[in-house]
Amino acid sequence: MTVARTVELEGHIIDSGMMARCFGAVMDMGGEFEVEEFEVGRHKHEETYCRMRVLAETEADLRAIVHELNQNGATVADPRDATLEAAPDDQVVPIDFYSTTNHPTYVRVDGEWHGIDDPEMDCAIVVERGGGGSTEGDVRARTKVLNAIEEGDLVVTGETGIRVEPPERPRNGGGSFGFMQGGVSSERPSESLISEIAGEMREVREEDGTVLVVCGPAIVHAGGRDALASLVREGYIDSLSAGNGFAVHDLERDLYGTSLGVDTESLEHPREGHKHHIYTISEIGRAGGIEAAVEAGTIGSGVMYECIENGVPYVLAGSIRDDGPLPDTITDAIEAQNAIREQAHEADLVLMLSTLLHSVAVGNCLPSTTKTVCVDINPATVTQLLDRGSAQAIGMVTDIGTFLPLLAEELIDDR
Amino acid sequence: MTVARTVELEGHIIDSGMMARCFGAVMDMGGEFEVEEFEVGRHKHEETYCRMRVLAETEADLRAIVHELNQNGATVADPRDATLEAAPDDQVVPIDFYSTTNHPTYVRVDGEWHGIDDPEMDCAIVVERGGGGSTEGDVRARTKVLNAIEEGDLVVTGETGIRVEPPERPRNGGGSFGFMQGGVSSERPSESLISEIAGEMREVREEDGTVLVVCGPAIVHAGGRDALASLVREGYIDSLSAGNGFAVHDLERDLYGTSLGVDTESLEHPREGHKHHIYTISEIGRAGGIEAAVEAGTIGSGVMYECIENGVPYVLAGSIRDDGPLPDTITDAIEAQNAIREQAHEADLVLMLSTLLHSVAVGNCLPSTTKTVCVDINPATVTQLLDRGSAQAIGMVTDIGTFLPLLAEELIDDR
Amino acid sequence: MTVARTVELEGHIIDSGMMARCFGAVMDMGGEFEVEEFEVGRHKHEETYCRMRVLAETEADLRAIVHELNQNGATVADPRDATLEAAPDDQVVPIDFYSTTNHPTYVRVDGEWHGIDDPEMDCAIVVERGGGGSTEGDVRARTKVLNAIEEGDLVVTGETGIRVEPPERPRNGGGSFGFMQGGVSSERPSESLISEIAGEMREVREEDGTVLVVCGPAIVHAGGRDALASLVREGYIDSLSAGNGFAVHDLERDLYGTSLGVDTESLEHPREGHKHHIYTISEIGRAGGIEAAVEAGTIGSGVMYECIENGVPYVLAGSIRDDGPLPDTITDAIEAQNAIREQAHEADLVLMLSTLLHSVAVGNCLPSTTKTVCVDINPATVTQLLDRGSAQAIGMVTDIGTFLPLLAEELIDDR
Amino acid sequence: MTVARTVELEGHIIDSGMMARCFGAVMDMGGEFEVEEFEVGRHKHEETYCRMRVLAETEADLRAIVHELNQNGATVADPRDATLEAAPDDQVVPIDFYSTTNHPTYVRVDGEWHGIDDPEMDCAIVVERGGGGSTEGDVRARTKVLNAIEEGDLVVTGETGIRVEPPERPRNGGGSFGFMQGGVSSERPSESLISEIAGEMREVREEDGTVLVVCGPAIVHAGGRDALASLVREGYIDSLSAGNGFAVHDLERDLYGTSLGVDTESLEHPREGHKHHIYTISEIGRAGGIEAAVEAGTIGSGVMYECIENGVPYVLAGSIRDDGPLPDTITDAIEAQNAIREQAHEADLVLMLSTLLHSVAVGNCLPSTTKTVCVDINPATVTQLLDRGSAQAIGMVTDIGTFLPLLAEELIDDR
Repeated sequence: MTVARTVELEGHIIDSGMMARCFGAVMDMGGEFEVEEFEVGRHKHEETYCRMRVLAETEADLRAIVHELNQNGATVADPRDATLEAAPDDQVVPIDFYSTTNHPTYVRVDGEWHGIDDPEMDCAIVVERGGGGSTEGDVRARTKVLNAIEEGDLVVTGETGIRVEPPERPRNGGGSFGFMQGGVSSERPSESLISEIAGEMREVREEDGTVLVVCGPAIVHAGGRDALASLVREGYIDSLSAGNGFAVHDLERDLYGTSLGVDTESLEHPREGHKHHIYTISEIGRAGGIEAAVEAGTIGSGVMYECIENGVPYVLAGSIRDDGPLPDTITDAIEAQNAIREQAHEADLVLMLSTLLHSVAVGNCLPSTTKTVCVDINPATVTQLLDRGSAQAIGMVTDIGTFLPLLAEELIDDR
Repeated sequence: MTVARTVELEGHIIDSGMMARCFGAVMDMGGEFEVEEFEVGRHKHEETYCRMRVLAETEADLRAIVHELNQNGATVADPRDATLEAAPDDQVVPIDFYSTTNHPTYVRVDGEWHGIDDPEMDCAIVVERGGGGSTEGDVRARTKVLNAIEEGDLVVTGETGIRVEPPERPRNGGGSFGFMQGGVSSERPSESLISEIAGEMREVREEDGTVLVVCGPAIVHAGGRDALASLVREGYIDSLSAGNGFAVHDLERDLYGTSLGVDTESLEHPREGHKHHIYTISEIGRAGGIEAAVEAGTIGSGVMYECIENGVPYVLAGSIRDDGPLPDTITDAIEAQNAIREQAHEADLVLMLSTLLHSVAVGNCLPSTTKTVCVDINPATVTQLLDRGSAQAIGMVTDIGTFLPLLAEELIDDR
Repeated sequence: MTVARTVELEGHIIDSGMMARCFGAVMDMGGEFEVEEFEVGRHKHEETYCRMRVLAETEADLRAIVHELNQNGATVADPRDATLEAAPDDQVVPIDFYSTTNHPTYVRVDGEWHGIDDPEMDCAIVVERGGGGSTEGDVRARTKVLNAIEEGDLVVTGETGIRVEPPERPRNGGGSFGFMQGGVSSERPSESLISEIAGEMREVREEDGTVLVVCGPAIVHAGGRDALASLVREGYIDSLSAGNGFAVHDLERDLYGTSLGVDTESLEHPREGHKHHIYTISEIGRAGGIEAAVEAGTIGSGVMYECIENGVPYVLAGSIRDDGPLPDTITDAIEAQNAIREQAHEADLVLMLSTLLHSVAVGNCLPSTTKTVCVDINPATVTQLLDRGSAQAIGMVTDIGTFLPLLAEELIDDR
Repeated sequence: MTVARTVELEGHIIDSGMMARCFGAVMDMGGEFEVEEFEVGRHKHEETYCRMRVLAETEADLRAIVHELNQNGATVADPRDATLEAAPDDQVVPIDFYSTTNHPTYVRVDGEWHGIDDPEMDCAIVVERGGGGSTEGDVRARTKVLNAIEEGDLVVTGETGIRVEPPERPRNGGGSFGFMQGGVSSERPSESLISEIAGEMREVREEDGTVLVVCGPAIVHAGGRDALASLVREGYIDSLSAGNGFAVHDLERDLYGTSLGVDTESLEHPREGHKHHIYTISEIGRAGGIEAAVEAGTIGSGVMYECIENGVPYVLAGSIRDDGPLPDTITDAIEAQNAIREQAHEADLVLMLSTLLHSVAVGNCLPSTTKTVCVDINPATVTQLLDRGSAQAIGMVTDIGTFLPLLAEELIDDR
């Protein structure tokens, strides 16, 4: 038995790689294709159109192939509405639910295509119909993570009525933000890259966009704290995401002049080691939290201080290796994830600085259209983060302790 | 002004490095020492005794030096009782609280030395007095992490009345468990090391001890799952600590024959990607948890299955990058840490397998006397874990997907 | 001024990525394209044909674009003969010489296309005409590295008359040898991958092909020496490439039972350290080389021993960090490179085992059509080697000390 | 049978770790010790003296133990002259030759102790007697690597008459150059460390010492070339050691504004790739070498240019992965090693910048007393280099492309 379905692709599908991935997927998965129509884009700005029949041995094989094609931008021809099925229970999805990519996605309901809110990968799509009728305005489709699914939610299943728009290669070059390359720019001069990142930050700021910075403790150890604090003060950072550890190291530096017990000025090791770390948490706890400690004058400098003073919101997520934690730290993983999700959805540019855990958590929630800069001294970390799928990303393997001062110099001192 | 205090060291203090570290600390911290008495151990089994006066410019300097000496095994001569101070509030420690090492530690209360329960680093020591009087039996000293401190707890402050016993170099060689070397045995033949680890596991089992295994998802991806499951089944594992991700991958393999969507037998990628992962969580949630899913026959193989079938307790700790999570996963970081702490305190041998986050969380709670094996393909991970201070540790940079089958072969097939 | 040239592509150019790379290159380099004809391959086995006009502002820009298109498989339409220019001096190339890729390449001379011998990247193409006339048989085109260029050599310049055939996506799947993916299979179960590699080796052997193994010293330290020796003995290895260090460690193990002074059986360190290493070189030198030492009975086991006994040729290349070196080691870098080049050109399958330097040296000389397996515990090494451009490559991040025994078991014990 | 020998240690042997290592070695190697006399240094500046009898089962065991003690600073009591034996052949050492450490070493000949010239590890010691008699001035002892040994050379065998002086812990603190710690200062702020390194360079310059810089190609890729060139121009670098690749990248940047084909200013990739690299070698070859190319005005900037202009000598060592190489490159490994050896012996401070191969080659020739700074973005490289045994070393994991500009700023701009 052979089964078949017809799919269509449209756009800059050759140079963006969609066509290649679709042909490849059919062959890799044991199917066949028959191109029925192919209209190549003859110029840079002309789009290409392809309609092809996809054949497979079994319906199951065909569905698997069509799922893959769908995720790479193909839509089933002769569109029908998406299939909706009620979730059988809280946190339980129907069999064969549609699992999202992080690309812009459209779902067909009552004959109309609706863009989904907050594209995010590995979610279900839940459709809500308003009370007043079947007009587009009354239908809302959005991503929901598994633990947000409630009994009765109308969840999209199968591939019918779904359209995904993978990122297309920009027509005007992409500047330093490479197109889906996932590679690490280790062969590019560090200072030039930093100045491009600065340019991007300036641009986002001018357009009143949101720069989200994701921070690891190495920022403090390596000597990048003052530079980051000045970037917050000068308005280049609009939102901060970190773990308990980053905040404690930053605050310890203010209270004791040390970071994990090392005097960051004299480089001398007062040999009180971890004690300052615990003390810091204890003192902030006594004050009632970071904001209270700033108000009481206990804390007078640093990244967290500037966040409080300049009204920059932050999320501190807890982890099982934390000391304390601080009263500000969200210890429940789901609650923390939800707070991070909100930050991610609002960001126009994300700087991931020397933290794998928090960068992955943020990256999981990002649509593929958000510009991302990932800086780490470990190339494996940079590669892993870029592979998660931003269409426009810069990866930079460098020392955060020299990166941040040079970035701040570029943005602030050179004005 | 010069201030001075007299300290004593006793034991195999030369070859264990304590004497060198104490002399070094005094010099590094700007102090002077005068050795008043020195009786060298003339043979391997004879102990060395040293009494020295330590001098510093200021009382603060002297205290810092004495703190450091104390942590390296020196005790203040002419011992007095430890100073106890009530915690001013919940989760707040008194100024100058004593921050613990992970070595066996004794505290002097009412003229008697009491060993502290559950040595663990970066904790406070809390002393509890029984109702009946001042006999040793009525006094209990134990470590408490900051968030467990309650208002009124009697917390040890300063260094007086504290004795630390850093590990001594074993007199009879240490086998493959090196003495405090913190190095990684990358130059040692892998098969020989595996057989030594097997020997150690056999020994712990014969003595009815507890082997705790800390598991990362790479175990499933790299093909070590069946071997680990058989070790659980055969009784070589007594306790398991992991994250939500490890359990889901293990269960997905049973439900769908895939791990993150890759068919682990045929190596083919069914291209359903992350969908199986989410499904698995959804299905286990529907069943009501892992145990219920095993009982219902939904799950019939794997590491988690064998844990349920063989009554091996496990802790699954949540993190902000989790999908789901499973109903079994503890999402609150503090609650999860407390569960891990209990596992760590009971363990006689800990195998840390391909996970940095969970290994650090377990390692934070371990006394320096617990034997530890750390296996990871990333040498940086192994080094970081060994540096946290087990006195007897094996670090092995290898592929978990070949390590576990060879270990299982050694323990099970070769009987 | 606008200049233009017409180029053609033919083959499986969509799914192999050539079309996407060509469109991308034109846009990235500031040019325009006009597709004049496009005949899509409608089925898996049908080829696609594209003819397009490429436009640029200046002749220099156009040449740069056409160079790039050429390297990705496009040929200038209306073909003319390649331009040949005599090398002005030994080791000096004419201005604008054609620098090769490692793909199969054809050059047009006297109206005929000639495949070049030994495709290798970053070389010049030198054309030799025989005495007898202009028939194809009398023309020979081959790659020459810079230092082999002799005054008067006819070197190809420009892009005219050059055709490159980048690898096409295999129509029948590629098994575990991925198509140009350059990725590392760290998420695939190790044992399954090993058995696929064994299958490939068996196949090459049955077809009387040549397996070249490139060896690093870690093979001996990590315990893979006996397994590799048995593979040589059983005829699975046809050629060996290594450094002086690998050979010395292998021989030291035979002479002293140690590797860099560590007893590889008992794991005890006889504490003679590097002395055995120097002794070994001294003893082989006294005997007059490895073959002489085997004949004299001084050496009786190991990888080098089996090479001698089984007539497996080897190249030992010297480096500036060597001790000694052995009399067999080629200390001149150019001479060593030439010997390695010969090995690489003859190989049908290359196993690169735990050495970056020697693997890069071999990889530099390989055509893109040679199957390659790269095994290292360091993912960065594996990635770097795969990026150099084999079309069919397996990268495996694992421990060579467990990999080789499992491979030998698969090939030898399981017969 | 029990055999015994008496050894002595003297100096700051407790805090420098020598005493601990000697006791440890005796126990690890199955021996026993009896301390016969022990006079502890009571103050920081007082030395400790120890005389102990070492016992073992067999003469062979005893010799192995005494060898180990000797390498850690113990000398056999009741000293006799060193045993000298003639080398049986060129490049062949007598059985039981003494293999050197990299510490200052003394050998007893004709009743007098003679310091050996050029301490270097893994060498033989050759003693030369002058014509005029047995006075100290007429005896010369020096290290010789295996390939420099000539038939008849008087080579020291056994341990008798040898005294090694392992580095002692400095009495006045060591500044940022840690004492034998072999660790990497990842927890120290990058900018502070850079300023300490600058201070050290300034000091060496004031004392007319020699700063040797060892350079990898990443310096050019990452954007550190101009800064390094300015350091050469300003007289902070006295000697340079690198491979062919570094020099070609530096020269290509001058000739074409690219580094491996990437335009380092505009960040655009002219897509000529490796062609510029080969061209550069060809052009320098045509000119007759780097100096000739500078004189002819072909080369007008960069690190190599400044070396020529400022008379800074350089060694370019070849390797099997080189293109070309340049006429200046020494292609024979032994010849290159000898040139590197001379550089190493003359250096007072060595900066190892982003190259493992060349840093190891230099490090192999350094005495343990030479100050060393090792900078690399890969922590494994830094660790490996520090482990080779400089007593005073700084390891810094950072980006060479930001490190060099900050270092140059510190040294040049801030004057």
